[in-house]
Amino acid sequence: MRFTGERSEDGITERLFELTVAGDVVPGVLWAPEGATGPRPLVLIGHGGGQHKTAPPVIGMARRYIKALGCAVCAIDAPEHGARVPPAEAPALAQRAREQMTRSGGMRGEALDATMARAAKARPEWTAALDAVQGLAFVGASGKVGYAGVSMGAFIGIPFVADEPRVTAAMFGLAGAPDEGHALVQAARRIAIPIEFALQWDDEMVSREAGLSLFGAFGSKEKTMHANAGGHMAVPVFERASWEGFFARHLGATSGS
Amino acid sequence: MRFTGERSEDGITERLFELTVAGDVVPGVLWAPEGATGPRPLVLIGHGGGQHKTAPPVIGMARRYIKALGCAVCAIDAPEHGARVPPAEAPALAQRAREQMTRSGGMRGEALDATMARAAKARPEWTAALDAVQGLAFVGASGKVGYAGVSMGAFIGIPFVADEPRVTAAMFGLAGAPDEGHALVQAARRIAIPIEFALQWDDEMVSREAGLSLFGAFGSKEKTMHANAGGHMAVPVFERASWEGFFARHLGATSGS
Repeated sequence: MRFTGERSEDGITERLFELTVAGDVVPGVLWAPEGATGPRPLVLIGHGGGQHKTAPPVIGMARRYIKALGCAVCAIDAPEHGARVPPAEAPALAQRAREQMTRSGGMRGEALDATMARAAKARPEWTAALDAVQGLAFVGASGKVGYAGVSMGAFIGIPFVADEPRVTAAMFGLAGAPDEGHALVQAARRIAIPIEFALQWDDEMVSREAGLSLFGAFGSKEKTMHANAGGHMAVPVFERASWEGFFARHLGATSGS
Repeated sequence: MRFTGERSEDGITERLFELTVAGDVVPGVLWAPEGATGPRPLVLIGHGGGQHKTAPPVIGMARRYIKALGCAVCAIDAPEHGARVPPAEAPALAQRAREQMTRSGGMRGEALDATMARAAKARPEWTAALDAVQGLAFVGASGKVGYAGVSMGAFIGIPFVADEPRVTAAMFGLAGAPDEGHALVQAARRIAIPIEFALQWDDEMVSREAGLSLFGAFGSKEKTMHANAGGHMAVPVFERASWEGFFARHLGATSGS
């Protein structure tokens, strides 16, 4: 874990870092209360497609959870996203992803395959990030760990969380798979921790049936789906408060400082 | 509107009343902040099957909303419920309802028919209660009006709200109809106000498909479904906070005293 930058603002310290995983440099960011010492809960945030580790929705969630829980928050750039893409290549890559989604008629076919390939690549990267962050004294390994990610952040997070016993509560959403035998659904079946799942009733990228079926597949005794009218990008702002409440219930506040 | 009792406790005044509607005496209750004067938001609560206007879940919601919003809360006994049933007949009536539900295999067939008949009878009773309560100076007609009711409270509330323009936000749930042409689904289609809908993923009385289909039918641009793992009676306690937040968003706090 190599730190590449640090700055503090409004009581929160942001540390940029890099990890090398399977030969790839993975850029990450870790936020914590300024002057934090001792163990605390940790939330991992998986960003959406076309976004990156410090995109506004990620920063917004991070600030909110840190203020409410005194936790740390970690995000990493997904494969083919953020600082992992040379700026000159980014527009063409984004264009290719959009075309793929259009050809597939949403998150299915080749678009889904490409996302699942990214998820497979991201899995050991998230494990390495969690290892590294828990090795820091101001995060530690004794606090509870949550994962939050919708859309691509869920396609990546579900297989990761399914095989990561350190994550004990997760918020997913805007995801689904067209058939019950799909690897994503299989991964969901192995998940037994409390889940909050966001579904958009009129999602133009993930069919309603695919989303409902994925929610149904989670093996969790405590699972809640919040379904809202509207398309993929129209998750109502009031859901942010619900996600905060979910993590407050399941991760608790830090006892450190 | 004849008041039949009044008492104050912990800052809330409870007024029991009776209305005569189509020859039937309908017993109701109105709660408001102690010493309330001037107009305020109003929440109507429809109790569940086998319960009554002052059953613990109704009182719990009423206290919560009054503390949070400064609103008034009104509940009435549904047909064949509460003080409308002579105490000596209550056990046999409850037994008959249970047997009906068992024979129907949940809320369908004759059990659903009986509930819809109760809803038809309750509709003018709710209208009369709303008229009467809005005629009181400490409630008034200028504040926003919400309706909250799950299970039988939803089967009764949906047809009522569909034809009652004064209700501007509603929490429903634990309800559904087996076919898209059912009167309950037709009523839901006419509803365009913000809705929060509670669905239990493993509801033994209302099938998942019936509940999803009813949620889908609401004509509202803003509608949210909270689906939780578990059976009909297992709505998680954290949903209570969500309902409070829903009414706080849509009814606002009182500006009076």
